[in-house]
Amino acid sequence: MTDNILSLNLATTRQVWGFKEAVEGCLAQGVTAISPWRDQVEAIGLAEAAHIVRSNGLRLTGLCRGGMFPAADIAGRKAALDDNLRAIDEAAALNADCLVLVVGGLPDGSRDIKAAREQVAEGIAAMLPHARACNVPLAIEPLHPMYAADRACVNTLDQALDLCELLGDGLGVAIDVYHVWWDPGLPEAIARAGRMNAILAHHICDWLVPTTDLLLDRGMMGDGVIDLVGIRAMIEAAGYSGPQEVEIFSAQNWWKRPGEEVLAVCKERFAALVNAPES
Amino acid sequence: MTDNILSLNLATTRQVWGFKEAVEGCLAQGVTAISPWRDQVEAIGLAEAAHIVRSNGLRLTGLCRGGMFPAADIAGRKAALDDNLRAIDEAAALNADCLVLVVGGLPDGSRDIKAAREQVAEGIAAMLPHARACNVPLAIEPLHPMYAADRACVNTLDQALDLCELLGDGLGVAIDVYHVWWDPGLPEAIARAGRMNAILAHHICDWLVPTTDLLLDRGMMGDGVIDLVGIRAMIEAAGYSGPQEVEIFSAQNWWKRPGEEVLAVCKERFAALVNAPES
Repeated sequence: MTDNILSLNLATTRQVWGFKEAVEGCLAQGVTAISPWRDQVEAIGLAEAAHIVRSNGLRLTGLCRGGMFPAADIAGRKAALDDNLRAIDEAAALNADCLVLVVGGLPDGSRDIKAAREQVAEGIAAMLPHARACNVPLAIEPLHPMYAADRACVNTLDQALDLCELLGDGLGVAIDVYHVWWDPGLPEAIARAGRMNAILAHHICDWLVPTTDLLLDRGMMGDGVIDLVGIRAMIEAAGYSGPQEVEIFSAQNWWKRPGEEVLAVCKERFAALVNAPES
Repeated sequence: MTDNILSLNLATTRQVWGFKEAVEGCLAQGVTAISPWRDQVEAIGLAEAAHIVRSNGLRLTGLCRGGMFPAADIAGRKAALDDNLRAIDEAAALNADCLVLVVGGLPDGSRDIKAAREQVAEGIAAMLPHARACNVPLAIEPLHPMYAADRACVNTLDQALDLCELLGDGLGVAIDVYHVWWDPGLPEAIARAGRMNAILAHHICDWLVPTTDLLLDRGMMGDGVIDLVGIRAMIEAAGYSGPQEVEIFSAQNWWKRPGEEVLAVCKERFAALVNAPES
């Protein structure tokens, strides 16, 4: 029995739906899995958000997001750790499948990406005991190399898996097609992730040609060039048959549309993916 | 004796200087190495360009560019090969150090990046005998993964080196810091390139934070986050001590300035790099 359901990452509708409206909108269309952002949870309050999740039997495919470890000084790194510990508590309260980690880029003024990567490893190591104690898996999300400077210096799936091997239990990866589709080593890396039992989440959207903005021009599934069917097949062959979470940052297109419309298109495109023959 | 001189890639001043003006501008500031684009050569004529190069004792650190191999049909791939054979002839006439290859992305309508990569290998293999006969080294330039769809599906240095190993003599790499700086495997890949004697060119510029355009927002050396001094040290340790070629696409900044000013700043920043202590 497959668990290959659609989950809505609430960034996709963030301009039009708060947490509560998103849940209502999803339930109205039969979508019972979501992935909220912490600011959206905070806006309604953690207790109320958790109540809504429980009383509606929602599945949280992830909480977005922890991370942002590197900082120019010890105080900055300590603040990041404190925030990450709170994020774990929030993920536990919401019974999220995982806490997604966007690890952060170069500290201000730094050109030393190796040092930033070491700070990431140290930061994850420091939060991991609390995550284990709370039973909250941490999902490292490798981000596209175009975000290496300012968002995440973990830029390939293999790099994330190296961190998982280094740091041990309680850690896995979120595989977002937008970030990894280009990687010539992707098939082998997905297979490796499967052998490590490390796949915690699968995020989808599409890469548009042309892409007009580095951050806010992601496409709806089917509108771009990513082989979503092929990558899903690799992920399932690696042993993960869980939800596909739609996460679309799209300032000029999808963010301007009503949530109902966006979700309806997500559902339609998702169904097309699930029913497509593998090419 | 080092050969660590500044070369001007003529894309850097393409909005203000044609081939002849660029040569005059460079000579006026003591710069004797350039890397022109084929359209710039065509505009003045190959014979005239070659005459200017010879009579001024200029060094061409590369000719930009061949490549663009993948196509949706055989006719398209044949047209690409024909154009690449002409590019080899032009590089030979100009006595360029190498012909730079930007290999191309996905053919229209395709989501099969593996097939595109196979077409790249086939395309290089097809042009390589003529390149060898003309003594024109081919420099595969891995491009940043954000160009995988529409410009180049060779996206890491290791991937380019794999092609060099596969296809044999006459082939090497152009290492452009803008494209590879983020790669966690970069130090090992540069060392590998050195062992293979494959480093044919070293291009520099900088990665701005934020970057506002995927193609036309490259920074001047020193204005961004790339560890240019550290990467140069790796490249020299790998056995390449040749020119550093400045290639800046900058629609909103450097392309709007007079060529003299741009070149003067390039020289100043280059001197700072060369004289910097390794961090």
